[in-house]
Amino acid sequence: MGGAYETDVIIIGAGPVGLFAVFELGLLGIKAQLIDILDKPGGQCAELYPEKPILDIPAIKSITGQQLTEQLIEQISPFDPEFHLNEMAVSLEKKDDERWKIETDMGTSITAPVICIAAGGGSFQPKKPPIPDIEQFEDKTLFYSVRKRDMFRNKNIVIAGGGDSALDWTNNLASIAEKVTLIHRRPDFRAAPDSVEKMHTLTAEGKVDFHVAQITGLEGTNGQISAVKTTSADHGDREIPCNMMLAFFGLTMKLGPIAEFGLDLTENRIAVDTEKFESSVPSIFCIGDMAHYPGKLKLILSGFHEAALMAHGAFHYVFPDKKLKFQHTTSSRSLQAQISGK
Amino acid sequence: MGGAYETDVIIIGAGPVGLFAVFELGLLGIKAQLIDILDKPGGQCAELYPEKPILDIPAIKSITGQQLTEQLIEQISPFDPEFHLNEMAVSLEKKDDERWKIETDMGTSITAPVICIAAGGGSFQPKKPPIPDIEQFEDKTLFYSVRKRDMFRNKNIVIAGGGDSALDWTNNLASIAEKVTLIHRRPDFRAAPDSVEKMHTLTAEGKVDFHVAQITGLEGTNGQISAVKTTSADHGDREIPCNMMLAFFGLTMKLGPIAEFGLDLTENRIAVDTEKFESSVPSIFCIGDMAHYPGKLKLILSGFHEAALMAHGAFHYVFPDKKLKFQHTTSSRSLQAQISGK
Repeated sequence: MGGAYETDVIIIGAGPVGLFAVFELGLLGIKAQLIDILDKPGGQCAELYPEKPILDIPAIKSITGQQLTEQLIEQISPFDPEFHLNEMAVSLEKKDDERWKIETDMGTSITAPVICIAAGGGSFQPKKPPIPDIEQFEDKTLFYSVRKRDMFRNKNIVIAGGGDSALDWTNNLASIAEKVTLIHRRPDFRAAPDSVEKMHTLTAEGKVDFHVAQITGLEGTNGQISAVKTTSADHGDREIPCNMMLAFFGLTMKLGPIAEFGLDLTENRIAVDTEKFESSVPSIFCIGDMAHYPGKLKLILSGFHEAALMAHGAFHYVFPDKKLKFQHTTSSRSLQAQISGK
Repeated sequence: MGGAYETDVIIIGAGPVGLFAVFELGLLGIKAQLIDILDKPGGQCAELYPEKPILDIPAIKSITGQQLTEQLIEQISPFDPEFHLNEMAVSLEKKDDERWKIETDMGTSITAPVICIAAGGGSFQPKKPPIPDIEQFEDKTLFYSVRKRDMFRNKNIVIAGGGDSALDWTNNLASIAEKVTLIHRRPDFRAAPDSVEKMHTLTAEGKVDFHVAQITGLEGTNGQISAVKTTSADHGDREIPCNMMLAFFGLTMKLGPIAEFGLDLTENRIAVDTEKFESSVPSIFCIGDMAHYPGKLKLILSGFHEAALMAHGAFHYVFPDKKLKFQHTTSSRSLQAQISGK
């Protein structure tokens, strides 16, 4: 993270479509760097359904999201793409030399003549619970993820949520916290049965409190939380004292800063042509689920096709003086040499 | 061959794109039958480069045309498509009930509300050598393929060509013909070394004559060939008597009878939209290499994408009263059940 880079094409999003774009660009001699908010390539495939079989990838009867990601990474490895993971593209600027400069939230800057947005459903961001005034505590004493576990040592923590993250961190932090209280609106969970069982064991041992209740508000001043207010049918209104809170209400996908890039949007997606999948701004392309055009289907295989046509469109910005010669991998020795790493 | 069939979609062409179309249609509950002029599915992949590696199928590092064909056949097998092989679609007619009726050169007729042309570069047809008046002998005593081997029994046959077909049939027919003379313009061949060696052995044994010469004309009357005229540097002009001729000058791809279907063409390909890949005639779609639209690349992966969008377009003709609900194979139990064959 950090640093200044230059390349031919900046790909925003390292899901399957962004990964395959590296291949199609590489076939035309175009270099690429990828930015992704997740800590690994694969996008939704790797994050949301790594173990679920995908059945409609052509010529592959069944493949999990994780396998698909791995096979794409292997396929593009001859083109040696650079990954900027755990980073979100936050700003876009046109330089005097007509190239684009993208900056990430981690201070990385990348300059290139072409941008290809392959950001799927958008960036994964935590869902915020509808609690009044929650913003004043965010990133001070209320968090949506655990960045440094040690911050929670000897704290009196309320954890809110009913999924794997809530259960896992309840169990994990119980050993270092002064106290952990788990609050979920129902007695049952969307989490691994093992984790649920472990939480109940910790509760029985007095190491964790578990409340079935609805959170109605937060108490505190100057960003320091002091209590979580709850309500439930059994216990009515209560106040649970705490000095730290973790809220796990799942992830949502948002267009994020891309919405501010000045591109024409249709139905909250980026409007593109179907010839090159170029947006309303020349040299900014969009492929995959975030692209919008008549007939668009959110299929991985459509993103693959879009990547191929995008690469041909990008070629003319990257090599304005060269003529593109279309070749097939079956018959072109030069393509075969590139792919085999020469 | 022969017989009358009814289905939802008639797919013309059983190459990789036609095969995958069966899958995308099947996901939407649409049945399909395929027609192909070749004797097996796979199209160009299986006919022209069965052993050559294809390197740009997404998530598959390397796959031969033959393997790709086999994997697609496996993938579509739950949808049980009917194949009409060795048949060419020759005529198209609109019936009173608005459905299309296709007839093949083998007398098969298929009726369906939708036609999907996935005919690649066109139908494979024999290349004709530039010999004056050759037409008068065609299909009488001069042939471009062997349909019934027994027709050649006890005949005096001239075989022209230097590829596998010429060599294979020279060796094969030597055992039943009165005489076989192979004529090729050069002493070397584009054929399996084994076959070449066998031909030379048969020549040494006096069972085959081999001439290095250029064919300049044919002799004969009323369609009955009587001699082949040749010229060469070593032997000058000669006449080689015969009563049958086989000419193997390779295959070429032609649009064929599809050119007469009344569809708008662009650069000898079928003009389609990019929303559903529908031609200028409603309910006739075209996908794969034969389709033309701005930005079109002749890539197998583009044909796969086109198949998916075509299927959504076809749905409304096949089920005019149903509403299409878009589902992903990762999350839809009903799709998973269909694919798993139940």
